[in-house]
Amino acid sequence: MKNGIGHHAIGEPFDNFLLIKSSTKGVASNGKPFLTLILKDASGEIEAKLWEATKEDEHTFVAEEIAKITGEVSQYRGRPQLKIQSIRPAQPTDGVDQSDFLETAPVPKEDLIERLTEAIFEMKNPNLQRMTRHFVKTYQEAFLTYPAAVKNHHEYISGLAHHVVSMLNLAKQLKELYPDIDLDLLYAGIILHDLGKLKELSGAATPSYTLEGKLIGHIPMMVDEIGGVAKELGIEGEEVTMLQHMVLSHHGKAEWGSPKPPLIREAELLHLIDLVDAKMNMLNRALDKVQPGEFTDRLFAMDNRSFYKPLFTNEHDE
Amino acid sequence: MKNGIGHHAIGEPFDNFLLIKSSTKGVASNGKPFLTLILKDASGEIEAKLWEATKEDEHTFVAEEIAKITGEVSQYRGRPQLKIQSIRPAQPTDGVDQSDFLETAPVPKEDLIERLTEAIFEMKNPNLQRMTRHFVKTYQEAFLTYPAAVKNHHEYISGLAHHVVSMLNLAKQLKELYPDIDLDLLYAGIILHDLGKLKELSGAATPSYTLEGKLIGHIPMMVDEIGGVAKELGIEGEEVTMLQHMVLSHHGKAEWGSPKPPLIREAELLHLIDLVDAKMNMLNRALDKVQPGEFTDRLFAMDNRSFYKPLFTNEHDE
Amino acid sequence: MKNGIGHHAIGEPFDNFLLIKSSTKGVASNGKPFLTLILKDASGEIEAKLWEATKEDEHTFVAEEIAKITGEVSQYRGRPQLKIQSIRPAQPTDGVDQSDFLETAPVPKEDLIERLTEAIFEMKNPNLQRMTRHFVKTYQEAFLTYPAAVKNHHEYISGLAHHVVSMLNLAKQLKELYPDIDLDLLYAGIILHDLGKLKELSGAATPSYTLEGKLIGHIPMMVDEIGGVAKELGIEGEEVTMLQHMVLSHHGKAEWGSPKPPLIREAELLHLIDLVDAKMNMLNRALDKVQPGEFTDRLFAMDNRSFYKPLFTNEHDE
Amino acid sequence: MKNGIGHHAIGEPFDNFLLIKSSTKGVASNGKPFLTLILKDASGEIEAKLWEATKEDEHTFVAEEIAKITGEVSQYRGRPQLKIQSIRPAQPTDGVDQSDFLETAPVPKEDLIERLTEAIFEMKNPNLQRMTRHFVKTYQEAFLTYPAAVKNHHEYISGLAHHVVSMLNLAKQLKELYPDIDLDLLYAGIILHDLGKLKELSGAATPSYTLEGKLIGHIPMMVDEIGGVAKELGIEGEEVTMLQHMVLSHHGKAEWGSPKPPLIREAELLHLIDLVDAKMNMLNRALDKVQPGEFTDRLFAMDNRSFYKPLFTNEHDE
Amino acid sequence: MKNGIGHHAIGEPFDNFLLIKSSTKGVASNGKPFLTLILKDASGEIEAKLWEATKEDEHTFVAEEIAKITGEVSQYRGRPQLKIQSIRPAQPTDGVDQSDFLETAPVPKEDLIERLTEAIFEMKNPNLQRMTRHFVKTYQEAFLTYPAAVKNHHEYISGLAHHVVSMLNLAKQLKELYPDIDLDLLYAGIILHDLGKLKELSGAATPSYTLEGKLIGHIPMMVDEIGGVAKELGIEGEEVTMLQHMVLSHHGKAEWGSPKPPLIREAELLHLIDLVDAKMNMLNRALDKVQPGEFTDRLFAMDNRSFYKPLFTNEHDE
Amino acid sequence: MKNGIGHHAIGEPFDNFLLIKSSTKGVASNGKPFLTLILKDASGEIEAKLWEATKEDEHTFVAEEIAKITGEVSQYRGRPQLKIQSIRPAQPTDGVDQSDFLETAPVPKEDLIERLTEAIFEMKNPNLQRMTRHFVKTYQEAFLTYPAAVKNHHEYISGLAHHVVSMLNLAKQLKELYPDIDLDLLYAGIILHDLGKLKELSGAATPSYTLEGKLIGHIPMMVDEIGGVAKELGIEGEEVTMLQHMVLSHHGKAEWGSPKPPLIREAELLHLIDLVDAKMNMLNRALDKVQPGEFTDRLFAMDNRSFYKPLFTNEHDE
Repeated sequence: MKNGIGHHAIGEPFDNFLLIKSSTKGVASNGKPFLTLILKDASGEIEAKLWEATKEDEHTFVAEEIAKITGEVSQYRGRPQLKIQSIRPAQPTDGVDQSDFLETAPVPKEDLIERLTEAIFEMKNPNLQRMTRHFVKTYQEAFLTYPAAVKNHHEYISGLAHHVVSMLNLAKQLKELYPDIDLDLLYAGIILHDLGKLKELSGAATPSYTLEGKLIGHIPMMVDEIGGVAKELGIEGEEVTMLQHMVLSHHGKAEWGSPKPPLIREAELLHLIDLVDAKMNMLNRALDKVQPGEFTDRLFAMDNRSFYKPLFTNEHDE
Repeated sequence: MKNGIGHHAIGEPFDNFLLIKSSTKGVASNGKPFLTLILKDASGEIEAKLWEATKEDEHTFVAEEIAKITGEVSQYRGRPQLKIQSIRPAQPTDGVDQSDFLETAPVPKEDLIERLTEAIFEMKNPNLQRMTRHFVKTYQEAFLTYPAAVKNHHEYISGLAHHVVSMLNLAKQLKELYPDIDLDLLYAGIILHDLGKLKELSGAATPSYTLEGKLIGHIPMMVDEIGGVAKELGIEGEEVTMLQHMVLSHHGKAEWGSPKPPLIREAELLHLIDLVDAKMNMLNRALDKVQPGEFTDRLFAMDNRSFYKPLFTNEHDE
Repeated sequence: MKNGIGHHAIGEPFDNFLLIKSSTKGVASNGKPFLTLILKDASGEIEAKLWEATKEDEHTFVAEEIAKITGEVSQYRGRPQLKIQSIRPAQPTDGVDQSDFLETAPVPKEDLIERLTEAIFEMKNPNLQRMTRHFVKTYQEAFLTYPAAVKNHHEYISGLAHHVVSMLNLAKQLKELYPDIDLDLLYAGIILHDLGKLKELSGAATPSYTLEGKLIGHIPMMVDEIGGVAKELGIEGEEVTMLQHMVLSHHGKAEWGSPKPPLIREAELLHLIDLVDAKMNMLNRALDKVQPGEFTDRLFAMDNRSFYKPLFTNEHDE
Repeated sequence: MKNGIGHHAIGEPFDNFLLIKSSTKGVASNGKPFLTLILKDASGEIEAKLWEATKEDEHTFVAEEIAKITGEVSQYRGRPQLKIQSIRPAQPTDGVDQSDFLETAPVPKEDLIERLTEAIFEMKNPNLQRMTRHFVKTYQEAFLTYPAAVKNHHEYISGLAHHVVSMLNLAKQLKELYPDIDLDLLYAGIILHDLGKLKELSGAATPSYTLEGKLIGHIPMMVDEIGGVAKELGIEGEEVTMLQHMVLSHHGKAEWGSPKPPLIREAELLHLIDLVDAKMNMLNRALDKVQPGEFTDRLFAMDNRSFYKPLFTNEHDE
Repeated sequence: MKNGIGHHAIGEPFDNFLLIKSSTKGVASNGKPFLTLILKDASGEIEAKLWEATKEDEHTFVAEEIAKITGEVSQYRGRPQLKIQSIRPAQPTDGVDQSDFLETAPVPKEDLIERLTEAIFEMKNPNLQRMTRHFVKTYQEAFLTYPAAVKNHHEYISGLAHHVVSMLNLAKQLKELYPDIDLDLLYAGIILHDLGKLKELSGAATPSYTLEGKLIGHIPMMVDEIGGVAKELGIEGEEVTMLQHMVLSHHGKAEWGSPKPPLIREAELLHLIDLVDAKMNMLNRALDKVQPGEFTDRLFAMDNRSFYKPLFTNEHDE
Repeated sequence: MKNGIGHHAIGEPFDNFLLIKSSTKGVASNGKPFLTLILKDASGEIEAKLWEATKEDEHTFVAEEIAKITGEVSQYRGRPQLKIQSIRPAQPTDGVDQSDFLETAPVPKEDLIERLTEAIFEMKNPNLQRMTRHFVKTYQEAFLTYPAAVKNHHEYISGLAHHVVSMLNLAKQLKELYPDIDLDLLYAGIILHDLGKLKELSGAATPSYTLEGKLIGHIPMMVDEIGGVAKELGIEGEEVTMLQHMVLSHHGKAEWGSPKPPLIREAELLHLIDLVDAKMNMLNRALDKVQPGEFTDRLFAMDNRSFYKPLFTNEHDE
């Protein structure tokens, strides 16, 4: 989506459909009402002001609606702003749909579920395999559509499954380098580690935190669920405790939300693999948006650093 | 137990029974074997060396056994040490029992269970009442014997119930001062907040951490249990989430083991009441051991402070 | 004051008197001058813009004046703003007074001074009693009108005395639970702990920090005063040092302004009681403003947390 | 070396050669001199006391000498101690050599240099390739014998090269998962990142810190060396700065010794790969020493954690 | 420059030349374009809006140009803003020059170079003297014009040399009080400590960070340069390492950018002298702008403190 | 005192008088009592064991007594220990005195009081001068004998006055470099900043903390004293507040014991001068004990650093 709103430069004209993410009424210094719109498509977001808004405008241009807009990308207080020249609500005949405006994982759902199924099939420990399969079956639909996070990394449709599959691939390669790793336990931990987000977040498209998400959080919620599923399947023994520990400790430190730090090898690895994949996802997407010789925007979740793209990068790749 | 080992001054003779907490073999600089014994009674602990120990001594004076010892309290590297003059194993005819050597709460079990039952009876919210009653019933025996912690505060037989009952009393008085408090929720949180310790610790008498205790911890274990009990009793609704949140957040901060800080009034109060009662328990017991005009030992769990007992304290009390 | 400005929802019309807290001149993008007014009554504050302000407006609508305003509560950048339709200065005939617009403690001054007097009367230690009585006598008028703080908690007329009386009640109840407490010392510490604020702050109605307040602070100022009063009354002995220590250590830690942490039992309790009462004051007032099922605004002085009010809270109270 | 001193249990007899790491004279409480010996072989270290040592003993049993010892492994203050029954210096006819007593990487030097050479051969960017090759050539001998650190991880003969080769393998696999990585830059960074240790440490066998190592440290020393080599080879352009940045930032944070954090993608990856390989080296070696169901010793460089080895680990591996 | 823009009070008229530091286009709420200008002279900076800007204005009023402006100093959101009444570009006949608008050290360049030369002449250690002289010769021009920093302290033309000369004077006086100081080493360290800034910053007039500055930083860059110069001059021995250490450690702590803390006496002193002179420069300039009895603005680099100027300060000085 | 106990190397014989700092009874593994003696002279301290001590020995060799000892300096657990061959109590005829064994400032008391008097004489502000003179007069005797601290820096007889005089000299020189400094205020602050130590510590010779010292601390005690003296002398105005602020803030930060950070220029300078003189005192004394090319012991109060003495230091000084 190279002609999306996220790729428009200051000064360029714009003429396309956009999804309204939020709409807030204000009063201008001339006393007239206006709307502040946050507009988005799959490539990014932009703010716009609809000056001298009528009562009808207020009811038409609301969150989750789609609008056809012509205008120009300008700048206000150092941030891009879309100057609206004309705006109208989308019609059924326009053939546009909310899902067209949401970013999606670069790998299709079919491939994601196939790789997940394959990983479970490879597991040899029956207790770990049964628990993992049970969860994937129960939550399959949501698992394949939810993002991995509200912002920062894999924050797009199917982001959670995309993140998990990347981590499974990474785990498989680490097993070759460090053969002592218990791959069954690591696979199970990877697949389940963020599954609590399906209850922590309200939905896949425009996720917000649920009450349970705010007061309990996805980690204790998932530890609880594993306990329940183990009882349901009649599974006892260390596998249950180890799997709960993997989920519980995967943030690495108490101050990052894990009341216990990793205390088994595979838990430590789960934490490291999660870190590597989340960081690479953030870095690659930020660097994709800049040219060699430029710095990216500051990345909040990477200590607010701004990364440089060297001039010579991969110039010798064929 | 004013003539217990914890109250002997350096230089005083000793002649009494003591419980062996641990026994370790060593070799002296003259090449002869000796035993390092940690000995205890309900008043405290002391180290002793049994020089030139025979093979028989090694098998007789082992952990959990009771011995009759005469000797003198001396000092080694600044810490008290019992110099053994004679030692023999206790006989059945001595009429001593392991429980005589363990510290116990200053309130009898009967009073503790009565107050607990009363508090549950006072609750008006049926969901909270049912869950709380269920837990107390299920765990009653252990609840009334376990300590509240391995060290620092209420680290004695029935310490957990003693701590809970103190907190219930404190809660009742706070309700009078701040009538908006939901006393049912606060009572339920107080009664259940540390119940996970029954599984985190191995037993009441000489508690150590279980594997599950080390890898999961009492807080997530209890959140999981509340989830299970609610399902078992068919209870749904906010009470379950709020009760899980109370337990989850009662350490106050992520770095202290609570992945969520208190986010409802009663959770904040639970945290504060827990703090007040634990601190008063530590302070009172440490100050009991010193005279007016003296400082206590350093209290590790109170930022390693050493507290002063003023000369005039309560001198005007009748 | 349920129809006060603090309780108006976005979109509601407003027609009432407000106290001008501050007035600042600006220039609009059309080149015309305007005034930014911060307006308040006992229920809260709101910002308003007076567009196209005349020279006369500039001199009429200044801080500490009262104005009659009609308008509508709108929103600007996510915060409420009062859209002014008409404005006029209050007239003597309007019968409004500055004190009508200031929040006041929910307990009348007479009750506060009565409880204070009673507590001093209960004290048995003559040295502590004489010093405490001397201070209360000397500062009585200011003590009964000053707030306990500029913001966060008990930040209203008589807030300091209200806070102190709450703490005295709490202390009395704790004495019942933990009878070793020296109630005289604790009472004296509670009554004097924040008295330095009478010199740290410039006044009761619209308090700001004095030069001495900024450069010395209320804690060392009060330690100094206790030293002076003891000399004046000819009191010597540990009571003076202990009382200075109570005041000095009541913030609990060096980084919170107490060069010594609490080192006697009553100092530790003073710190805890202060914490409990301040937090309950903040929490109760924030929760009063929201409905069950809602979250409060973020509370800066409580680690910026936003608290939830459960749906079922106290529904079973009669 | 399964019968080495590092694998002896308390109470087992010992009869073998050991390298003397240090020897210190003391005076026993009976007034007689004794020697405290730290003894080692490739499997570990142990302390021993040689009581009633003669003047000759003092001169015979000194650091870097080898001794034949019979005795028994006992325990002193909770740590193993070798109780010496007989001791004699090793003779030429014993056929033992200092290198027999030093731990060595599990991969032979020939394989390490082969993989290093191969990685350099794979590089396509001529500037990075020339600088890297120049360093490996210049320092080849030391590179293949030095440890990667004085303690914690890869602290054995050839440890540096072993660590680097593991990291190169990891890098190659990450390139497959995240194809945007500039593998040349990452390879160059991996090979050079710790090369400054060759000057920071005094030698391969019993390394200590050099004066330059203590006052400058391996990171700034290597940044300086890269600057010098670039000048010498007539190489200019961003490759030099990027390579210096890779080395400079590889500890990740200022407080860990990197004045700049990683600011290019490959620098971030270098930091992560270094972390993963160092942690896996520590974890695998610590877990190798314990049985399933046991915890390892505390690992200082991993936040002092003690790791658990699950009972079921890899039991399903064929 | 007492009539400079930095000394205008709110409400005062302005009529003078100003240098345009930056110019950004925006669109007003009436849909018309405007320019936001940051204007400066040697006394300070101010923001201004040029409403209804033409295309020609956009090209005329750009960064680094000088404009003649009449207007009035007003206030917007609590910060001064220049309300433009008329504006025209400066003409050659106006006789104004960019350098007229830049702040400069209060000591002329000639005096600075003289003191520098004198200090080098006083040095007795030939190795330190030769290295120091070489650097001063090589970089003399830039050394005498660069600021010591982009902001906070000595952030003006010749600021670096001014800072260095102040520090040399301070060092000379400390040598009298503490005669063990090695003055040669301290002088050399002072002169070279910030010289890396000549490459870290892009220029003297409107400095920004270079790529090497961002990715390597002035400290490692200078350690590298000293290494190169020592090789070039054929100097070996501890003087080189000590000088590198002085530069490396002068920020005092790892988290402030020094991978090694000061480990020789003169390095510790260099750090302290740097601190004292930077702080005095900030403090004196801030206090110069306020009257006795007032507080300065908050000083970001001094922990955001606002300093008070006592009423009686130096009133007794003749 | 070059042949003092602090300068003896391991293995050297010793034959001289030593002051007993402490004496503790223990029981050896052979069941016989022994004494652990801490012995000192003006050059340092050493531990010694008096084996098989008689009852008489116990009463003879007690703290504050002097003994004549012959023996040998050996080593135990890495620390020097004096092996006693013979010991006898000092006799009146030995002509030794306790003061011979205490370290003293390198400047005589007469010079210290002269410089103090001179500084007060130079002051022009009558209020500051009167208060300062009053304090010096009141406390002159103790001021000239007390140490500046119990350990770390200036921890010797007259250490406090020596520290203050050094700081006065430093202040005078800084005034030349930064003429805006108010020297009167700075002088007064320097002279009074640590005077509270006269009440915080129990005495000059073997200082320990008083009860008031432990519970209030020298900083608030001195703020209180200044308040009292100002009242006594009838002095009002900012000088009193500023002087209290100087003392209050001289530790620089809340976590270092200053509830307010420095908020006037002279307070900031007082903090810096205190830092410089304390550090130079520690550094110079530690470096005096080592040869060029060696590192000092770790200095606890300087972040536990060990400092290097370069080989070439001051070799060119004549």
